[in-house]
Amino acid sequence: MNPGVPTRSAPAERLPTPLSFQEMWRDLAPIGRNAATGGYRRFAWTGADADCRAWFRTQAESRGLAYEVDRNGNQWAWLGEPGGANAVVTGSHLDSVPEGGAFDGPLGVVSSFAALDELRARGAQPTRPLAVVNFGDEEGARFGLACVGSRLTAGQLTTEQAHALRDADGVTLAQAMERAGYDPSGIGPDPERLARIGAFVELHVEQGRALDRMGHAVGVASAIWPHGRWRFDFHGEANHAGTTRIEDRRDPMLTYASTVLTAREKARLAGALATFGKVGVEPNGVNAVASLVRGWLDTRAADEDTLSAVVGEIERAAAAYGERDGVEVRVTRESFTPVVEFDHGLRDKLAGLLGTEDVPVPVLPTGAGHDAGILSAAVPTAMLFVRNPTGVSHSPAETAAEDDCLAGVTALADVLEGLACH
Amino acid sequence: MNPGVPTRSAPAERLPTPLSFQEMWRDLAPIGRNAATGGYRRFAWTGADADCRAWFRTQAESRGLAYEVDRNGNQWAWLGEPGGANAVVTGSHLDSVPEGGAFDGPLGVVSSFAALDELRARGAQPTRPLAVVNFGDEEGARFGLACVGSRLTAGQLTTEQAHALRDADGVTLAQAMERAGYDPSGIGPDPERLARIGAFVELHVEQGRALDRMGHAVGVASAIWPHGRWRFDFHGEANHAGTTRIEDRRDPMLTYASTVLTAREKARLAGALATFGKVGVEPNGVNAVASLVRGWLDTRAADEDTLSAVVGEIERAAAAYGERDGVEVRVTRESFTPVVEFDHGLRDKLAGLLGTEDVPVPVLPTGAGHDAGILSAAVPTAMLFVRNPTGVSHSPAETAAEDDCLAGVTALADVLEGLACH
Repeated sequence: MNPGVPTRSAPAERLPTPLSFQEMWRDLAPIGRNAATGGYRRFAWTGADADCRAWFRTQAESRGLAYEVDRNGNQWAWLGEPGGANAVVTGSHLDSVPEGGAFDGPLGVVSSFAALDELRARGAQPTRPLAVVNFGDEEGARFGLACVGSRLTAGQLTTEQAHALRDADGVTLAQAMERAGYDPSGIGPDPERLARIGAFVELHVEQGRALDRMGHAVGVASAIWPHGRWRFDFHGEANHAGTTRIEDRRDPMLTYASTVLTAREKARLAGALATFGKVGVEPNGVNAVASLVRGWLDTRAADEDTLSAVVGEIERAAAAYGERDGVEVRVTRESFTPVVEFDHGLRDKLAGLLGTEDVPVPVLPTGAGHDAGILSAAVPTAMLFVRNPTGVSHSPAETAAEDDCLAGVTALADVLEGLACH
Repeated sequence: MNPGVPTRSAPAERLPTPLSFQEMWRDLAPIGRNAATGGYRRFAWTGADADCRAWFRTQAESRGLAYEVDRNGNQWAWLGEPGGANAVVTGSHLDSVPEGGAFDGPLGVVSSFAALDELRARGAQPTRPLAVVNFGDEEGARFGLACVGSRLTAGQLTTEQAHALRDADGVTLAQAMERAGYDPSGIGPDPERLARIGAFVELHVEQGRALDRMGHAVGVASAIWPHGRWRFDFHGEANHAGTTRIEDRRDPMLTYASTVLTAREKARLAGALATFGKVGVEPNGVNAVASLVRGWLDTRAADEDTLSAVVGEIERAAAAYGERDGVEVRVTRESFTPVVEFDHGLRDKLAGLLGTEDVPVPVLPTGAGHDAGILSAAVPTAMLFVRNPTGVSHSPAETAAEDDCLAGVTALADVLEGLACH
């Protein structure tokens, strides 16, 4: 498992038969699943993550693909020369949010292996190296930063910044990697690897219901909305809930509540998204007026001007509520990702491969961040979406029909063939 | 430390000099204190609690008082016959809420020892047994139920109910007691002990600013407002914060926020108190619409009709917000304590001992629960309050001036002398 040292498997005739899409899906399904809720916890560098990684390696080796782990712990499976120039790379991630669904990430990885199988079945002859990748820690559920594996590769996260990451128990990223059996000594930007990627295509379950409304199984991404996270700290005064007169209180829960409702309203009016989904309270006692309520605002919009305007309105409203309540409001921007316009040439090529003049393939934006969004700054990048009839994501209710998943595999195979086999 | 077996100390002439009020206060101050915030964490049966208990025992023994621990882990220090009939008992508790203040509880225990010292200095001759008590786990910070020690003694908590209590780590009350070196085999109602208490007087720091507004150092309690805790579970649907359209969401954070604001307004209009100070969110991810927001409502009012009316209004409003948001709202009453009217005869006796016709002592209600409130169902019970200039409680900002504390000691000594020495 040394970074950068590919291990070539035994000759193809002695390999086990590769699993079909459905078999791979069944094989992966139990890992990290909460039997009571059906939700997943596959956090980076945990036992569940290790099981997912072992699954990836098995898929690579059972297909005779050259398996390697890069300096940042991302897994690669190569058809053709490992790390060859102008490679066509496809893949996604296997980690999850807390109580996540089965499809966000894994659908892209499973479909990538299945698409390679389909290329072989078609007898397609790649003229460029092909690879499947599993980027580490896409969701950021453990260390609080999304897309750590791809950010490091693309140089959007420095070695120093990566070493400063800690989980809720104070374990550093490097310690977590080491405990999982990976060598963290090389983590950092990987420009040589990046330079050898000629195109990256990520297939992903749709995280809304646009394809369902349009009646299409597969779509092509146009852009990722700009988005960011802001931490709102509402500082009041702890007090006894049973004895402190209403007029003597400085209760930050009220300021928080008003801000939550305003965020929803301002986003709705602007056609944007604003969500408070994470809250921390101190001292968090039933009979204590809170001293501190900390709420995280996730905001997204079609363009950066709209995003800034919405966040500005929410901040000003929070400050006014703070005045009303005697509560000090501090706002910290924890992350910001500019708009991602996927490579127009690649996007048009995918649309040409997958649609016709009569039945064009839908081309649609998304509000979700992805490893593809990170890589797009340096590499021609595209995304395929597979219909999600519930529109639900980051939840056990996230789903996709098997027929749609197989249509996704075919579309991905068409794209890989179009890019790598001509 | 066997329950019910008093240990008599060595003869008085060989005892160390008892600590003064100020020395006792200084001695107790560092135990369980967070140096960064000044807040206390003295949860039942933890190391900090053990240190407080050792302190209590030292105070008892240094005064030649007979020390014992009852079957429920409450500590007793007896002047005169241990467990004698018609005893006058004073005391409070030494445990704290999370990040609590120094005075809530400890002021009553320290003042009790100091008041006994003052009685001796006056040469008062008790004709009834006198005792100082430290009731265990008054705040309920660890097991979620307040006044466990006094409830058990008074038979307001059964042995079975006590054995069902668990802390956040799943440790039972019995396990916690055992790990702290106490025998939990006898926990349960203690009617014989209860029957021997002729009167209970608890001195406590005021948890509001009424005495400060009236310009008095000490007051007498009239009643404890009825109060209760209701858990509001707001069940929505987890979803991706970046991709789910506003109109497709069932976001319980919005329902919670509207309910918080309504609770404040309904309480204000009714002259009652309503507080959401504790919240739990699932999955509590920055980029996830919550599936569940759980908020605990603490409500208090001068009478039970007003309390019921306020809670009913809040429940109905929450249900309506739930309809609006597609969120299911379930409300569970977790606890309810009826109004406590302290014994009128004892209250009037205290008022007569401490006030004059020209300068009557203030007699005032409180919204806070106390061990005195529990005992009052079975024993003539009274409370003294000491002025708190900030009015703040359950917070490091809780305070009382030294002169006021000493006035409290004198008042308590006057009361004990009036009850036990004539």
